[in-house]
Amino acid sequence: MKITVEFLRRIADAAAAETLPRFRSVGAVVNKEAEGFDPVTEADREAERAIKEVILSAFPDHGILGEEHGIENGGSPHIWVIDPIDGTRAFISGLPVWGTLVGLTDEGEATVGMMSQPFTGELFYADGSGAWYEGPGGSRRLGTRKTTRLADATLFTTTPALFRGPARAVYDRFETMVRLPRYGVDCYAFAMLAAGHVDIVTDPGLKPYDIVALIPIIEQAGGVITTFEGGPAEKGGDILAAATPELHAAAMAALKG
Amino acid sequence: MKITVEFLRRIADAAAAETLPRFRSVGAVVNKEAEGFDPVTEADREAERAIKEVILSAFPDHGILGEEHGIENGGSPHIWVIDPIDGTRAFISGLPVWGTLVGLTDEGEATVGMMSQPFTGELFYADGSGAWYEGPGGSRRLGTRKTTRLADATLFTTTPALFRGPARAVYDRFETMVRLPRYGVDCYAFAMLAAGHVDIVTDPGLKPYDIVALIPIIEQAGGVITTFEGGPAEKGGDILAAATPELHAAAMAALKG
Repeated sequence: MKITVEFLRRIADAAAAETLPRFRSVGAVVNKEAEGFDPVTEADREAERAIKEVILSAFPDHGILGEEHGIENGGSPHIWVIDPIDGTRAFISGLPVWGTLVGLTDEGEATVGMMSQPFTGELFYADGSGAWYEGPGGSRRLGTRKTTRLADATLFTTTPALFRGPARAVYDRFETMVRLPRYGVDCYAFAMLAAGHVDIVTDPGLKPYDIVALIPIIEQAGGVITTFEGGPAEKGGDILAAATPELHAAAMAALKG
Repeated sequence: MKITVEFLRRIADAAAAETLPRFRSVGAVVNKEAEGFDPVTEADREAERAIKEVILSAFPDHGILGEEHGIENGGSPHIWVIDPIDGTRAFISGLPVWGTLVGLTDEGEATVGMMSQPFTGELFYADGSGAWYEGPGGSRRLGTRKTTRLADATLFTTTPALFRGPARAVYDRFETMVRLPRYGVDCYAFAMLAAGHVDIVTDPGLKPYDIVALIPIIEQAGGVITTFEGGPAEKGGDILAAATPELHAAAMAALKG
């Protein structure tokens, strides 16, 4: 399914119109769950509505899987997977490292994806012709680094606390094998992997809407992204992305414990 | 000592001319130390030189304490304290959450400070008249949140790994007392505290150039910033900043273990 960058920009703009005015505003945060801290904002809901409107007006027979509203028309071979604000904790903390994620799966395979960050004015996307960047520094093709050894790698994970039970000890040991481990920044870390600034990103327990949009960006930038077992990342789960096949294999072996 | 915002903008611009073209460029990173991973870039060195030039051309008799070049004219009652790139790990990872820090101490007390983030086009500063923000969202006065209880607080620290020995267990316990703990983002977290988006920021083992610029911004926004023992933060050390005096007292008690 061919999707143009103009169409992705329209999606990004529609979402930004809902998210950006509410970013750093006071009182926008409500709790999605009574238990624990799972914040989601009015921005999230309104942006999802706006994104769906753009997609369905162009492709009325496509399916949509959103974080907020679940799946619609799931029988279509073309399913758009949406997370209006990936990194809600960054959003509510005022940090410009959240993103709007929109990906397209054709027969289950992620083929097109975009991550936009409206505060910085950045768009990372993959349209089948490659992975691309538009932003304050100009436009360019995205490409991963050539790092092949864990000892040379910068690693990002949202927080080690997401590795639970025995997985935590395995993660902690993995962390000692890399050059520089860093925490936080959610989808923005995957974008930096595609852009050649970091080497490995891993997060356990992701949902499809956390990752589908990022798969084509990483793959078309030259990286590898799978589950910890090496399976396709489209269904979410424990996800590992790396700059090169060699580095991915080394990281996957380390994460097996 | 009265310093105008125009002068702070001149400093920010001079630094940005050196940092921004090198941000996300390939090959800019060199190691400051043979052991470990303490990256510093050409940008860091050149920005420090440019900042000193602006300051000394206006105030030739003032002293300067820089991360890169140490102290000069340390006998002056007016000492400028400079960190051209606070958050070098964010810088080399492509993340727009590093900052240029420049503060002024008069007789040892931090009175004026600025943090600029040139990629996002943001300037946070305090000039004695209050703490202020200029950026893509417009200009406004900075003010901390009114949070008084740990259970309601968002906490940032660069990484728990910086708490060493027995301090780590104390920190880990502290973390369980707050609503939402988050890692990373260095100086940017302190700026978000002043802006009312987060409630507590703590980092152990800071140097004066990591913190002096941020003290006036936090204090003039209504927050409290001291060492873990409640002493002045100007000399660095284990630093705790909080949105209100009540929250600061609660956090300080918790960090005593």
